[in-house]
Amino acid sequence: MPLVAACQLKLDVDKPQNCSQIATQAIRRAIANGAELIVLPELSNSGYCFASMSEVQESATSLHGDLIREWSQIASEGHVVIVAGINLFESGHYWNASIIIDQSGVRGWYAKAHLFGDESKFFKAGDSGPLVIETALGKIATMVCYDIEFPEWVRIAMLNGAQLLALPTNWPWIGQTPTQPPMEVVRVQAAASQNKLIIVAADRCGSERGQSWVATSVITSVEGVIIAIANPTPKDVDDAGEIIYAQVELPTDTAITMKNDIRKDRRPTLYSSILNE
Amino acid sequence: MPLVAACQLKLDVDKPQNCSQIATQAIRRAIANGAELIVLPELSNSGYCFASMSEVQESATSLHGDLIREWSQIASEGHVVIVAGINLFESGHYWNASIIIDQSGVRGWYAKAHLFGDESKFFKAGDSGPLVIETALGKIATMVCYDIEFPEWVRIAMLNGAQLLALPTNWPWIGQTPTQPPMEVVRVQAAASQNKLIIVAADRCGSERGQSWVATSVITSVEGVIIAIANPTPKDVDDAGEIIYAQVELPTDTAITMKNDIRKDRRPTLYSSILNE
Repeated sequence: MPLVAACQLKLDVDKPQNCSQIATQAIRRAIANGAELIVLPELSNSGYCFASMSEVQESATSLHGDLIREWSQIASEGHVVIVAGINLFESGHYWNASIIIDQSGVRGWYAKAHLFGDESKFFKAGDSGPLVIETALGKIATMVCYDIEFPEWVRIAMLNGAQLLALPTNWPWIGQTPTQPPMEVVRVQAAASQNKLIIVAADRCGSERGQSWVATSVITSVEGVIIAIANPTPKDVDDAGEIIYAQVELPTDTAITMKNDIRKDRRPTLYSSILNE
Repeated sequence: MPLVAACQLKLDVDKPQNCSQIATQAIRRAIANGAELIVLPELSNSGYCFASMSEVQESATSLHGDLIREWSQIASEGHVVIVAGINLFESGHYWNASIIIDQSGVRGWYAKAHLFGDESKFFKAGDSGPLVIETALGKIATMVCYDIEFPEWVRIAMLNGAQLLALPTNWPWIGQTPTQPPMEVVRVQAAASQNKLIIVAADRCGSERGQSWVATSVITSVEGVIIAIANPTPKDVDDAGEIIYAQVELPTDTAITMKNDIRKDRRPTLYSSILNE
């Protein structure tokens, strides 16, 4: 049973060079604590609340930049899988991306397909499904933040064989009713249970240009049960924020009872006409 | 803002004649308390744990039977909408159905499309999408129990304009990890928030042939927030069980922020190929 970690980081778009450093420190700390899969928040190399396109440009990384080279080196030395939300410049565009790196290097990257708020001012929306990569730990999928509110998207990851979903997020407090757990966590739990997936969601903490975050990074079982959850309030203990850990058993099938299977019990011919409209 | 009610009933498949009586009593009580929409559990005229097909046959109702005539009369006199799970004989088959009745009579019926456990031994699976009916209260959708674990199905109801989902259920305790709230409620909350729907779920209480139920019938806001929830433990106060009520405001759009809309933000062209496999 691999030990997985979600790094809840305090980042600041006003100090982009610090963001990468904080992210890298968190990866190193998680590895030191035995984590084999480390998940970082959305846009962990830049922060989120951009005021201008030039801020996006200045804080972006490329697939061949120093940051990705460093993380690849760390993954190689530590024999771990890293999934990180990053501000990525690639193929002439800026992407709100998630990258999967393992001991062999960059295994793939995904561009957020469902953009939230003002993100479309800065990033091009991805046109490909959730990334699913076969790793030494199992089949790991990734998508970014708002993507998970589209249950079709998680379904696609499950149908493509994902056993674990790594979700970099920046869950903003924007007037939603505070609940315990927050609705962001409730949606993660439901997505896990409806797709028999482990989910590891890494959020932000602290605040940035007046924007605070839900925090409560979470790791769920395939039943949707919360097995680790981070502090719900902004935490300023140190710059690295908080790392939560859990030992997880990846599912080997999609059965939920002796007689029911959430994949086989689907009725896809009944879904097709309307869902594609 | 209409007052809606979910009736958590103690039924017994060994006494099918009592089931209909208990269900009818609950409807009358909810109306007396001012409810304008009343939701009953799955198979509320028969109980659930059938031992033989003859038990199904003997407890089934037809659309033109005494029970539906009585409920239509009550709906007409009370100017209410009733949504009830029923064991229905229609078109030569037995169905695990949900029926929508308003003051003008039977508005439509739906056959559970995703059958659970041994249900396929007794019932034919429906081949039509969730029923969505325009009523005096708004557009009301219905499906039955396990159906809601298929997020595609709730999506279809939302895409067809549903503002409220009435969910007759029989949530069995079958070894799932007990959580607070139960995962059955968590999935209802997520479905509501991801589709901006009010959800009214009516479950069972007590036990039947050794099978007990999760109970915790629930009414959620369009944010997925629990606004009423029934007792989680089997309750034997009286034969009518427990009725929960909430005043709900039906949504008039699918916007979730000034800039985001869960219907418009979908990327259906990206979903089509895989979801229909």
